This record gives sequence, structure tokens and C-alpha cells, in this order.
Amino acid sequence: MVRINQHFLKLHNYFLFTEIAQRAERFLQKHPDVTLFKLGIGDTTEPLPQSVITGLKRGVEKLSNKKTYVGYGDERGEIALRKGFVSWYQEHGVSLDADEIFISDGAKTDLANIPSLFHQRCIIAVQDPVYPMYVDSNVIYGRTGKYKNGRYKKVVYMPCVKENNFVPSLPKTRVDLIYLCMPNNPTGSIMTKKQLAEFVAYAKQHKAIIIFDTAYAAFVQDPKLPRSIYEIPGAKQCAIEINSFSKSAGFTGVRMGWTVVPKDLRVEDAIPGEVNALWKRRQATMFNGVSHITQEGALGLLTKQGQKECHDITQYYLENARLIRATLTQLGFEVFGGENAPYLWVETPKGLSSWEFFDLLLEKAHIVVTPGVGFGPHGEGYVRFSSFGHRETIQEAVKSLQKASLLQKI
Amino acid sequence: MVRINQHFLKLHNYFLFTEIAQRAERFLQKHPDVTLFKLGIGDTTEPLPQSVITGLKRGVEKLSNKKTYVGYGDERGEIALRKGFVSWYQEHGVSLDADEIFISDGAKTDLANIPSLFHQRCIIAVQDPVYPMYVDSNVIYGRTGKYKNGRYKKVVYMPCVKENNFVPSLPKTRVDLIYLCMPNNPTGSIMTKKQLAEFVAYAKQHKAIIIFDTAYAAFVQDPKLPRSIYEIPGAKQCAIEINSFSKSAGFTGVRMGWTVVPKDLRVEDAIPGEVNALWKRRQATMFNGVSHITQEGALGLLTKQGQKECHDITQYYLENARLIRATLTQLGFEVFGGENAPYLWVETPKGLSSWEFFDLLLEKAHIVVTPGVGFGPHGEGYVRFSSFGHRETIQEAVKSLQKASLLQKI
Repeated sequence: MVRINQHFLKLHNYFLFTEIAQRAERFLQKHPDVTLFKLGIGDTTEPLPQSVITGLKRGVEKLSNKKTYVGYGDERGEIALRKGFVSWYQEHGVSLDADEIFISDGAKTDLANIPSLFHQRCIIAVQDPVYPMYVDSNVIYGRTGKYKNGRYKKVVYMPCVKENNFVPSLPKTRVDLIYLCMPNNPTGSIMTKKQLAEFVAYAKQHKAIIIFDTAYAAFVQDPKLPRSIYEIPGAKQCAIEINSFSKSAGFTGVRMGWTVVPKDLRVEDAIPGEVNALWKRRQATMFNGVSHITQEGALGLLTKQGQKECHDITQYYLENARLIRATLTQLGFEVFGGENAPYLWVETPKGLSSWEFFDLLLEKAHIVVTPGVGFGPHGEGYVRFSSFGHRETIQEAVKSLQKASLLQKI
Repeated sequence: MVRINQHFLKLHNYFLFTEIAQRAERFLQKHPDVTLFKLGIGDTTEPLPQSVITGLKRGVEKLSNKKTYVGYGDERGEIALRKGFVSWYQEHGVSLDADEIFISDGAKTDLANIPSLFHQRCIIAVQDPVYPMYVDSNVIYGRTGKYKNGRYKKVVYMPCVKENNFVPSLPKTRVDLIYLCMPNNPTGSIMTKKQLAEFVAYAKQHKAIIIFDTAYAAFVQDPKLPRSIYEIPGAKQCAIEINSFSKSAGFTGVRMGWTVVPKDLRVEDAIPGEVNALWKRRQATMFNGVSHITQEGALGLLTKQGQKECHDITQYYLENARLIRATLTQLGFEVFGGENAPYLWVETPKGLSSWEFFDLLLEKAHIVVTPGVGFGPHGEGYVRFSSFGHRETIQEAVKSLQKASLLQKI
């Protein structure tokens, strides 16, 4: 008699973005003439850059021709692409081996699967607020305990609040897997190298692993801030890094990410190099590699032209962020983030809850944002504005904000 | 202090195909002038058909243009594609809802992830021999117990041997998840509707779930044989079906599969429709959908032209299978499969072990096959020939076989 994985039933609510979509849809059903400004999901809007298009077309051509057609590839990604990433990291001052880089169909997939490498009873620590799928995937793994009063019992939440500039303090109780999202989604905050070095030292001392999600690294403007955890000496012994071209090159619908599992990674009951070997084994057993076509597109991005195009795309969205930030500030809102990240973290006015402010923005300014509480208990009292959008949409959204006189309507 | 998932250490050997590649490589190092005929992995060699190429190009174009660019899609796959599959199943006499179809980056990924929907202590049953990743993924989930004498202690093996025409009998002890690969990889055997109906009746009676891997269904020639488990009345209450275009349309390196989770699926501790909802939730939490470009390619395959091209590709490989089968039979080998499947299951001569015959074929005929024992204990004494390859390669391989006089060399 088969039974279900009961851990699924511990998942609180539905997935955040589904709930948002449903509220927006209900509003549109009542007001079918309204055009909503969707600044909720961090979904890219600008077309793929030329370097990628050229690569993708080359990929299609390759598979169309008997002489160049290839079937299954290396589950870890083609060696040319992995070597390309080695050079890419080298330019950022980080030295890696091609065998330490694993190409996947997206950062989310890897973030979901990496925890399966570790013991069932691992204790996870997350920034609070943060991207919800770190916790949700561990709920499904059965690591979190039950949900009560906005928290999972066994998860260690590291508050990121105005008082600490949205940078977490080191955990005070035992933790085994520390998720760090840097720049953070949703707060747009980022640690300095010194602050990150403290986490690396902590992880080494307590034999913990840092899962470093750096999907927004391309948005970091300040050259003094870290873009990879491996810029911190010793991090290879305690950190797995996961990155993506989704936001910096419009790969949201193309699907490709990459993960670094260093051979130096130290785990108490594993021999040196074993975690790298286990991930390789995991991928060979449960995954079949990424589309050759997609990989050809990614190769394009690693060229000089591709890197210039990535830079232009991130600057485009950051200009959007500056527009939203300026308007909100001018209207009297308290705004964080948006300078080294595509997200703005906005305090709700007059003590409104996240969802109350969400509804107000939806109904009065026709703007869809993401309620902060969806990212963790310390997200309550905030909403996240995403700066992904066509410039003209952002400009109209900003006008709609100005016209709505929200603060007068509360 | 973080520890690893100890279940990984129960995995026997390295992944089968990696071991084969290593033996072939060692041989080539000793004999650098030899060209090997690779009939080991079931890897496609014929280029993508025109319907796919047109779709892929349309997909690239779409993402290149500001007006048509799209970012994240539905994690389950675009509705147009899912509706296309509804019509596709309809043509095969199976009625499904678009919400029951989930597009993924490949059958292997879904086969690996579907078991996570079910309770940790589920007992799995597999055909023996069969595609090894069913068992291997469940080793990682911690469901199989330890490996000893060619078997995992808690796995129920259903022998597929010459005496039962390689069709398994019903399990004699309690099982919860029954994997059926049909046509079977590696034996090329397939159940009749009557035999499959017995498994459906058994699953319903014992409240078990059948995970039906039908990745080779397009190769079934006999119209009386089932291509989908849903051709059997009542199967929607007890079966999840997983399929792919990898083998029938050269999608091995394009990466796309699909899974049917019927809303009628019955699980003792779940309400009707809940397993479908849990899979939707799982995919929304841990996956981000398939490349839009790939999905456009797949849409091409669902056209009349696409279906004709799929048919031509499968006929091409089946003609290869006929060539290999005829030669082996003529040389005095006992050959099974290859008529409704791209694999031939060949008994080793004179009591050789699978690996001994593998080595003999490698060294004397320069042909790489897959040792049967890699697919399970009852695969001992057999090897699998794959018929994927260019016609001229297969013709040369066949000549090499004839020249090698293998039976005289044992």
C-alpha cells in the first residue's frame, strides 16, 4: 500500500508566486480594463543578446546536420563550456578546475538538489527574509519540522533587518548547511568581503557548508564587494556556489545555471574530493545534461562581446531600479536595495502588513509587487519591487505610483 | 557538523556506462589505430528532423525579439504543448487533461524525481534486468537497503528470463512502487495488453503505483501491443507514465520529456487529485520549466509532418536492429528483442559471463556493447546491442562481427 511523502503536507501555503498570480487574476476579473504593472516576479523582459542568438543558431545548425549531430553530452556540461567558466572565474581572480564546474538546467534545480548530498538530519540556516525555495525544498526533504507561527521549527532563521543593514549575524546554535543569497533576494543587500569572511571562518570552525546563491552577482556595481565566495581565502573548503545567466542575460526561459563543487570541500565523514565525486555521481544517475543548443548560447556569453552585452542588460535593469527608487523615496517611502541588485526592498507605510500594502499597490497603483512576508517572518512590513521590465513600462508604473497618492489613502 | 547522505555509499560500482567507457578507453590506449563500433549506450546518431529544426529556429527568433521575448514559462510546460500532447494521446485512444501532463527536461529527470512524492519506506519492484537508474535513484533516497551478491536487500526483483519470454510475473511479496519499462530496456521485450492488464489489476488490488517508462513506445510495430498504459482500463487510478522524444526524434541532446500524473490516481492517504497537485507543487518548488526553444521544437514534432519524421527515424534504427539480428542469428547466437524496440538482447555463448563476452566483443570484433549484468542479476549471461548508429557504421560493425569468428575463439 503506497503512501505519500508526508513532508509535502508541511509546506505552508501555496508557492508564493502562485498566490500573487491568483490575487492579480482576481483583480483583473473585477477590473478587466486595467493594465497591471508586474513588478512581482523577477522575470526578465529584454531579448537575448546577439552573442547568445548566434550561439543558439549554431547549436540548432549542429544538431541539424548528420556530420555534426551529437546525442547525449557530458552530464556535467560540455568541456568547452566548463573551461570557458574556468577562464571567466579567473578574470574575477578565482582559480577553479573544469571538473569543479557542473552545468545544469538552472540555479533553482541545483539549489533544490544539492541538499540531497547531505545527511537527512542536517540543520539548515537561512537569511530571513530570503528566496523561499531554500526552505521549501528542505521541507520536502523532511528537514524542517512543522510550520507554526510563520516559522519551521527546526530551521535556523538569521534575521536581516534594518538594524543590521539586512546583513545576517552568525548563527548562535548549531547549523550544518548555511544558505547565503548574495546579493540577497529580496532585500538587495550584500555582504562586504569582511562580513563574508566571518561566515567562511564560522563554517570552517563548525564544519558547516555554505550554499552560496550568487544568481544576482552580475548586478554588483561596487568593485570592492564580492561577486564569488571564492574571493574569500579558504572558502573552497566550505562553500558550494550556484550561479545563473537568467537575470544577466535573459536566460529565464532558456534554462541554464552552473554550480561549483570544489574538490577541497571538507565534510567530516567524507574523504577529500568525495563531495565533488558524489555530486558527479548524483548528476550521472538522476540528470542527463543540458541542451546542447543552450550550451552553445552560453558559450557566446563567455566571449568579450557576450560579457559586454551582459553588462548592458544589467545596467538597463539597474536604471529601472534607480527610477523606481527615486520615485518611491520622493513619495516618502523608505527604500533599501536596488543599487547592487535588481530588487528594491520597501518598508510598508503606517504599519501596514506586507499583504495589505500588496493589495493597496494592486488596487490603487495597479502595481504587482511581492509581499515581504512571503520571504520569511522578518519580511513582514516590507514589499519587494522588481526592476525587471521594459523601460516604458517602468516609466508608466512610476507615473501610476505618483498618481495614486498611496500615503493619503491609508 | 555536516555529514553526507550515507545512502550514496550504498551505490554499487560506478554508473554502468562510465565503466564501459573506461574499458573502451583502455582498449583504445593499447590499440590507437582501431576504430570502435559503439553499440553500447542507446545514443542517437541521426540529425533532428525538419519539423523540429523549424520549431527550434522559431523559438530562437521569438526570444531574440523584444515584442515576442518571454522569460519564465509555466513549470509544467506551455499550455499549447500540453494541449498538443492531449491530442497526440487522443489519436492513440487515450483521453487526458492538459493539467495531467507535465513537460520536463527529460524522462530520466522525472524518473529520478517522481519517487520523492512517495513515502520514504515504500518498497520498490523492478524488472530484472532493467535500466539501472530506477534502482540507483532509490538507493540515494535510502529505500533499497544494502547491496549484497548483486542485489539490494529491500528491492523486489521481478525476473525477466528466457523462460517467461522476458515478461515479469506479478510480485509475490508486498510492493508499493512498481517500475515497468515497456518496451523494456535492455531486453527489448514488451507485454501484451492482457499481461499489462494483470499488472494494473494487481496494482489496484494492492494499492500500489506503477511507474510506467515508455520511452521506447515509438518503436512498437505490432498494432496489438500497448504504447501507453492508459490503453488499459482503470490504469489512470494506479499509473504514472513517463515518455520522451529522445530516441524517436533525436532529442537525447535537446532534453525534453513528459510525465502523466492522472488526477484519478489513488493513494491510500491522499485525496483524489492530490498526487497530481503534489507533483505540480514539487515542480513549482524545485524546477523552473523547460527551454522555450526546446518546447517550440517539440511542438513541431506533434504536427503531421513531425509524426511522419518520428516514424521514419524509428524505422531507420529498426532496420539497423534487423541487420544486427540477422547477422548474430546467422553466426549462431541466440537473439531476443529488436523487433518492437531498438535493443537486442543476446545470450552469451558457451556460458561466458556478461563482462567476459563484453571484453571478447571489444577485443575481437571492436564492438562495444552493454554487459547484461549491469541491468540486474538476471542480466548475467547476456549482453545488449544497441541499434542506434549510422547505417554504414552498423554495416561495418556487422562485417566486423562476421570476420571475428567469435565462437571459434572461446
